[in-house]
Amino acid sequence: MPELRKDPIVNRWVIISSERGNRPKDFSTPEKKTNKESCPFCEGSEPLTPPEILAYRKNSPNSPGWTLRVIPNKYPALTDEGETGQITEGLYDKINGIGTHEVLIESPDHDTELELLPKTQIADSLKALRERVLALKENERFHYIMIFKNRGEPSGASLEHTHTQLIALPIVPELVSEELAGGKKHYDKNKRCIYCDLIAQELEDGRRIVCQNENFITIVPFAPRFPFEMWILPRLHSARFEECETRLFDALASSLKESLLRMRTALNAPSYNFVFHTAPVNGNHFNYYHWHIEIMPKLTKMAGFEQGTGFYINPTVPEEAAEILRETRL
Amino acid sequence: MPELRKDPIVNRWVIISSERGNRPKDFSTPEKKTNKESCPFCEGSEPLTPPEILAYRKNSPNSPGWTLRVIPNKYPALTDEGETGQITEGLYDKINGIGTHEVLIESPDHDTELELLPKTQIADSLKALRERVLALKENERFHYIMIFKNRGEPSGASLEHTHTQLIALPIVPELVSEELAGGKKHYDKNKRCIYCDLIAQELEDGRRIVCQNENFITIVPFAPRFPFEMWILPRLHSARFEECETRLFDALASSLKESLLRMRTALNAPSYNFVFHTAPVNGNHFNYYHWHIEIMPKLTKMAGFEQGTGFYINPTVPEEAAEILRETRL
Repeated sequence: MPELRKDPIVNRWVIISSERGNRPKDFSTPEKKTNKESCPFCEGSEPLTPPEILAYRKNSPNSPGWTLRVIPNKYPALTDEGETGQITEGLYDKINGIGTHEVLIESPDHDTELELLPKTQIADSLKALRERVLALKENERFHYIMIFKNRGEPSGASLEHTHTQLIALPIVPELVSEELAGGKKHYDKNKRCIYCDLIAQELEDGRRIVCQNENFITIVPFAPRFPFEMWILPRLHSARFEECETRLFDALASSLKESLLRMRTALNAPSYNFVFHTAPVNGNHFNYYHWHIEIMPKLTKMAGFEQGTGFYINPTVPEEAAEILRETRL
Repeated sequence: MPELRKDPIVNRWVIISSERGNRPKDFSTPEKKTNKESCPFCEGSEPLTPPEILAYRKNSPNSPGWTLRVIPNKYPALTDEGETGQITEGLYDKINGIGTHEVLIESPDHDTELELLPKTQIADSLKALRERVLALKENERFHYIMIFKNRGEPSGASLEHTHTQLIALPIVPELVSEELAGGKKHYDKNKRCIYCDLIAQELEDGRRIVCQNENFITIVPFAPRFPFEMWILPRLHSARFEECETRLFDALASSLKESLLRMRTALNAPSYNFVFHTAPVNGNHFNYYHWHIEIMPKLTKMAGFEQGTGFYINPTVPEEAAEILRETRL
């Protein structure tokens, strides 16, 4: 069973997930590339995946005829069987790796990318993600639902067919905890959401805006870790992605598509990651947390400096990155 | 001039270092490989580097005849001219990117690696690092001196000739601040150093020990972020690397060589990073901080999950990794 272990000195949890290969030879063998013929995410390959959890389709489950599918990850980082438990060994704490790991396949087409799909299809994908988050929240063992995408091998994708992942966790990730703490501090002092203030300042300044519509804004943040990093934020205060109203999904799809397309065009279709940052399942963080999507193209290698310290060197001036992205012709 | 910018929500500083290339084309052009003929770090190429700061050599400076050299980084992430300053723009804070960036070339031989050098040569390299740290500490604008190595292209090395880097910073990196806070909390409660307690527990347990000698111990930590991650710790309490006594450098060199060689042999000479973690220049952290080296082989890709959250999935059970490293025949 996978375990979650806590570093005894800093507040860092790690999933030890031995199901995924751990001997030296597992690392020295290059990963097999899946091609169209052997891709388990393609239409017609449904028997190669675990049974679907959700699909937008006309036909019966686990057969062709779908536009999107959500399936359990075949090699999950966490398991949903058993109880969390907590074991202390002297200085050390660990809990069972309770959680789930699901995959959204946004299109039956092997040769497309999320940003190339029609807006309605992207909106459907976002709605499917919301539907899964709402379902997973019912499980009281899960404290945080993380949504993220790895696109391209350098960003950690093991399959090239477009997909997004959901992981339900029994703990809240450290960075989200830090954001909550930072948001609370600002709120206690100013009685305002720091992200709302940030949006106001960015709108006033203008230099870091990539694109915007009535409901969402995409910026290059003031202190980005990575070149051409972007954040998509809802303009109206909202703590949780899953509380995003249905009427806003077209604008969200439009914003995500445009942001990704600008990055794709300006940077020659880079590998990338995105991660949804949202308030934890429990607790009331309505006032001081503001959900958003962080998009990180994979352009530079993470060097020892960054890995060892959480301290980043970014060779691109954020205002110049925003200008390049903003002025890219689509 | 490079800048240090602080994220307004979390305690994260980023170096914006535009000297190092920032336009989209800088990322799409593959890096040129340096070969032996064009390598600026080789003996005989001294005119290709900035004038040396320190060298162990028989001849006159900036000529052949050396066993190791320290030079300024030709493309520094920070500059040592000017004052830190501090500029606030609404929610945002930034300071000038004041610091230094130096490179230690541990051998004139292009075809070797640090771990393949004789123990005496490794000890000399460590002594040279200490000498530079002691010199840089004299500059009161520097609050932290970071030592790190990128070995191999996947880990961020831009030159293949063996080298280690020093960066002097006007701030303390977040992870070190967190370690200081964690150490202080434990000390306040127990009046003992948490790292000393950790060493005692690891010695008692034994499952995560990779190798040890009279003065240093190498373990796979309880909650490692990366497969086969290792920490080298001095057995006697000591807050700062630069306070390591001269009599201990043979043992430290021996420990570093053996740890790296075990990793090299077990994992087929992987790309790797190491980072020295040491107490900041200012302040007294003698009681609750314990310097150490963190070694991270580059075996898995950092996926979106990790980047977005500081939350890691490690597919290798630490006790199994330690056993493999410990039992590798050298």
